[in-house]
Amino acid sequence: MRDFDENNITAAVIDRYKNTPDPRLKKIMTSLVQHLHDFVRDVEPTEAEWGKAIAYLTRTGQLCTDKRQEFILLSDTLGVSMLVDAINHRFAKGITETTVLGPFYVQNPPEAAFGADISGEAKGEPLYIDGSILSEDGKPVANAIVDVWHSDAEGFYDVQLPELEEPTLRARFHTDAQGRFRFWTIVPRYYPIPYDGTVGDMLKATERHPYRPAHVHFMIMADGHETLVTHLFVEGDQYLDSDAVFAVKNSLIRDFTLQAPGVAPDGKKMDTSWRKLHNDFVLAKAVAKKSAPAA
Amino acid sequence: MRDFDENNITAAVIDRYKNTPDPRLKKIMTSLVQHLHDFVRDVEPTEAEWGKAIAYLTRTGQLCTDKRQEFILLSDTLGVSMLVDAINHRFAKGITETTVLGPFYVQNPPEAAFGADISGEAKGEPLYIDGSILSEDGKPVANAIVDVWHSDAEGFYDVQLPELEEPTLRARFHTDAQGRFRFWTIVPRYYPIPYDGTVGDMLKATERHPYRPAHVHFMIMADGHETLVTHLFVEGDQYLDSDAVFAVKNSLIRDFTLQAPGVAPDGKKMDTSWRKLHNDFVLAKAVAKKSAPAA
Repeated sequence: MRDFDENNITAAVIDRYKNTPDPRLKKIMTSLVQHLHDFVRDVEPTEAEWGKAIAYLTRTGQLCTDKRQEFILLSDTLGVSMLVDAINHRFAKGITETTVLGPFYVQNPPEAAFGADISGEAKGEPLYIDGSILSEDGKPVANAIVDVWHSDAEGFYDVQLPELEEPTLRARFHTDAQGRFRFWTIVPRYYPIPYDGTVGDMLKATERHPYRPAHVHFMIMADGHETLVTHLFVEGDQYLDSDAVFAVKNSLIRDFTLQAPGVAPDGKKMDTSWRKLHNDFVLAKAVAKKSAPAA
Repeated sequence: MRDFDENNITAAVIDRYKNTPDPRLKKIMTSLVQHLHDFVRDVEPTEAEWGKAIAYLTRTGQLCTDKRQEFILLSDTLGVSMLVDAINHRFAKGITETTVLGPFYVQNPPEAAFGADISGEAKGEPLYIDGSILSEDGKPVANAIVDVWHSDAEGFYDVQLPELEEPTLRARFHTDAQGRFRFWTIVPRYYPIPYDGTVGDMLKATERHPYRPAHVHFMIMADGHETLVTHLFVEGDQYLDSDAVFAVKNSLIRDFTLQAPGVAPDGKKMDTSWRKLHNDFVLAKAVAKKSAPAA
């Protein structure tokens, strides 16, 4: 076929995928071409504008390293990561809601003992967190893996602080026989996503701010259950209604309640005021996986 | 706003662009978010599939160098480059049709004299090309710039052959007082676009071939006229109906007519057979440029 114009070219390109062996890939390419062409027909880019788009994507790829993933950040700030999250977690009411993993999770965090303090040398307001991991039917889940990580009192994660020698404000716990976990840390702060790259250029040019409201990340894994990736957000944070990555859900906002000096639930004697966060997480039953795609 | 789900997140993201100072950028971001989210809702990617998409885009950016532009190649093979070309060249009947620039144009090609042979050390069937550059009203355009470039008899451009010391099969001519140009070269061959990168991976996974039918590129620039970027394709090429970048137009296919040994139109005596290509190009009048965007 020849002589494609701005209307018939889309069907011609889609037709070129007719021999794709993997039906899933064929569906993806067909939909991609249709939506990408519809976008181009809608905005009618000049050749200079299309050149700028090509240069933007190129620079985004070239900013990626083993410590930085600018395309994930772009996906996050365009709301795509949360959309993919929503599509993949259509859980029943009562299951703890999910939210984005974010760029600061580190594989295989350091193991910590039940009740440990993970704040290391980080200074801040003491925070005691406890709760249980439960199945849909309300039964506690023993020996679940509970990974936690969060920013410090100035909004930085340990991986952003090269002077830190040890993982800090980051650990892996296991629930006890009653499905419980507990630990000490410090209260996290809101922070900006990295905005010195192409994503930052986009945010600045569109007068969007780069901030995320304060939160503690949780990833919870247990046999027979879907892995839960979520946050608990601090009630009252100024960015709850304008999270740069659209990840806030009302069901995940908690009072980190102020406590007077005295004895904490684990018996620890506190000379200063501190904060307390209690939360139970409810895991969905594991879904049978679809068979692997053909290619 | 909070509590976005797979349906209401799109409006929420678009709303985040409401303060964009440049109305053109606001339009582009709004349309991008709408179409990108529609694509995601249509294919419902798993988290693993979205991760593969992120990795694919990252690798595409990282393949780009000053000699290779993999995102342009992706745009070409998805038919987007020709779509952008069509949108930007809605010329009246009678104007020579446009097609993609392609990745092998080099800025400021070597100047060549009227009638020169640009084949250098490249071996192949001799080809004589002549013609005129005309305005819409049929008047010849004197002193127009005529840049030409094409592959050799094995399908390679000079920039792909590191052993070549001089630009070859590539030159800049100027039309004479009667708007004419003429030169000698060799007959080009079909060739594959570079397919050892992410674009090649896509073509292989979808059983698409990487070939472009044989053609000679022209870029023609003249005061008071729109710059014309086009090819002339060789009639009979096996890839005319399946050009990997969707750039073939019937109005641009020509017989490169076989000539017996004898005297060529410029008086040159030919001992072997040779080919002749005559073509007049008609340029559109320059369009008044829109005012620059606000930002």
